[in-house]
Amino acid sequence: MLNFDFYSPTKIFFGRERENEIGPIIKQYGFKKILLHYGQTSIKKTGLYDRIVASLKEQEISFVELGGVEPNPKVDLVRKAIQLAKAEQVDLILAVGGGSVIDSGKATAVGACTEEDIWRFSMHELSPQKALPVGVILTISAAGSELSNSCVLTNSENWLKRGFNSDLIRPLFAIMNPELTFTVSKYQTGCGIVDIMMHTLERYFTDSKDVELSSYLAEGLLKAVIEAGKKTIENPHDYEARATLMLASSFSHNGLTGLGGKLYFTVHRLEHEVSGMFDRVAHGAGLAVLFPAWAKYVYKQFIGRFARFAYQVMDVSKDIKAEDAALEGIIRLEKYFQSLGMPVRLKELDIDETSFEQMAEKALGKNETLNGIIPLNKKQIIEIFEIAK
Amino acid sequence: MLNFDFYSPTKIFFGRERENEIGPIIKQYGFKKILLHYGQTSIKKTGLYDRIVASLKEQEISFVELGGVEPNPKVDLVRKAIQLAKAEQVDLILAVGGGSVIDSGKATAVGACTEEDIWRFSMHELSPQKALPVGVILTISAAGSELSNSCVLTNSENWLKRGFNSDLIRPLFAIMNPELTFTVSKYQTGCGIVDIMMHTLERYFTDSKDVELSSYLAEGLLKAVIEAGKKTIENPHDYEARATLMLASSFSHNGLTGLGGKLYFTVHRLEHEVSGMFDRVAHGAGLAVLFPAWAKYVYKQFIGRFARFAYQVMDVSKDIKAEDAALEGIIRLEKYFQSLGMPVRLKELDIDETSFEQMAEKALGKNETLNGIIPLNKKQIIEIFEIAK
Repeated sequence: MLNFDFYSPTKIFFGRERENEIGPIIKQYGFKKILLHYGQTSIKKTGLYDRIVASLKEQEISFVELGGVEPNPKVDLVRKAIQLAKAEQVDLILAVGGGSVIDSGKATAVGACTEEDIWRFSMHELSPQKALPVGVILTISAAGSELSNSCVLTNSENWLKRGFNSDLIRPLFAIMNPELTFTVSKYQTGCGIVDIMMHTLERYFTDSKDVELSSYLAEGLLKAVIEAGKKTIENPHDYEARATLMLASSFSHNGLTGLGGKLYFTVHRLEHEVSGMFDRVAHGAGLAVLFPAWAKYVYKQFIGRFARFAYQVMDVSKDIKAEDAALEGIIRLEKYFQSLGMPVRLKELDIDETSFEQMAEKALGKNETLNGIIPLNKKQIIEIFEIAK
Repeated sequence: MLNFDFYSPTKIFFGRERENEIGPIIKQYGFKKILLHYGQTSIKKTGLYDRIVASLKEQEISFVELGGVEPNPKVDLVRKAIQLAKAEQVDLILAVGGGSVIDSGKATAVGACTEEDIWRFSMHELSPQKALPVGVILTISAAGSELSNSCVLTNSENWLKRGFNSDLIRPLFAIMNPELTFTVSKYQTGCGIVDIMMHTLERYFTDSKDVELSSYLAEGLLKAVIEAGKKTIENPHDYEARATLMLASSFSHNGLTGLGGKLYFTVHRLEHEVSGMFDRVAHGAGLAVLFPAWAKYVYKQFIGRFARFAYQVMDVSKDIKAEDAALEGIIRLEKYFQSLGMPVRLKELDIDETSFEQMAEKALGKNETLNGIIPLNKKQIIEIFEIAK
């Protein structure tokens, strides 16, 4: 087990109707003026917007608002939000939505405390020294941004998608009512399930030794998600299944399932080039295509780990010998993704080999190789895209 | 899944030699004067005390100290610590030790912010409104007090052992170096393993439905602890096994393994009467005796849950039918406790039936029944003691 720090201070208010407590919760923290940040039209259609505003008004909490956050949130809108937060001297960013809105809110929280352009943080030229607190009302179970230290933005000038991590942007609180996710479409629900699983899979497939506790916790989380995912796709109004997904989304990306192991997030970095270049691609869909391809490319050098995954998580019989089991586990995962309605090949995303070289180059940036349990050079990255073709 | 709040803000600094960072860590938080609180002589014998003092002095952090915390920490010493904390106007309590020292430190943190006697909080006559921050350097993997909201004291006037819970007493930070636990005796290590498992078992055996995520996480944690416990007893210097136990101790009692389920902690409440009345009894040893007895008494009404435990955690073959498996799981757990060198009968603790009535009456206090998945009246509590005899 490697030495590590772990910090997950977000207070969770979980369950039915908890969003109606937003006014009293903010009042208790003592905030005076907030920026209400959200996405497209859905929170207005469902009446969530009205309930939040009513609760804020009842507690006489003053607020300004900025909607319009898109999937793969854009740095342009973040700049507008920062300007607004500064002009109005808000003391809390309240992000109502899923990972995109929360990430946009986190970037705003950092940007409001500096005169530097926020994109410089995404490019790792600067790291955050201060941030406003962020509160969350979660409406999509996927990114885990409600507990994570990460924030990913897309720049529409060069279609780069880049993230930065800082404990300063872990949300102060998150209100999580599974009922708010009943209206998430089947496709977005599928993307979310893949994203939740991937945050743990990227941690689980580490080359660090002796990470028994986090491995067992990871396997438990994955099993819970696989079962709940199936039930949610069958019945989008299954409260208990939605609740399991929502909780799992948070604990899959707060660090718990990777305690003491080295992190690479290789498949995420490959995927960022896909959904960065092709804005139509949902992050979860890109991951569903790329993880099985990456796994098929590397598993032979990590038979033990991939076989354990197959036996413990994918219910592969222990009578099957390790090497065959390892591959069978990957194939079952791919089939599971398909059963959720997810693509598992790049062609299903209308991406073909004419983009492979450029995507590989973007993933590498100025580096010779992309870090991972097997470091990947340009040729190897293209070979993975070929498997995913 | 029930609605719930979850809050576990403690920052963990985990790994080899991390205790040497204590000075810089406190400096970074900006504390000026601390109360260094510890137990008996062991931190002086091992040199830990000297390393801590050196690190504090190097950072010019001023401190006062109070050692002498006993197992089953006494309210008398807490009163002394409160007096000292007030007189010296300390702004951080640094608890160096295991659960007893941390609980003593937590009570001091509450007591330093009020004029009321601290025992009134233990008796639930008052609840904390404010507390000094508590930092921890952990030396025993057991109680999980380093992340928990709980604090248990013993009053040597009436030999009552009583606890209170508050998010205000969750430690600010915890430094966790598994090497510091190498010198913990085999017996105390065994007690610790039982205590760690019990914090999850008390959550796992709930009557709440649909707690899939926390159940899977609980099973994962228990499996990791069972394996690491075995290795630690065989080789007390096995860093990786000690590391698994230490991490598990924290996450077994911060709320994670019981998210969304109703909590009773019935066996803990029975055990508090045993180690409250018989101060020689270590908490973990009392639990090792009482849990299997309680489980044998109630399992027939919760066959499904106990069978799941048997199959998933205790490796009972799925060919064995549920009712038999449920009992077999309990028996295997009892044997596991024995293999750690733990007692599994009250007579091994020199407690016989002459004390049963009084222990049962103390456990009930003014109530007719003790809460639990099956509420227990006096007669039933005595029947459990009879099974444990």
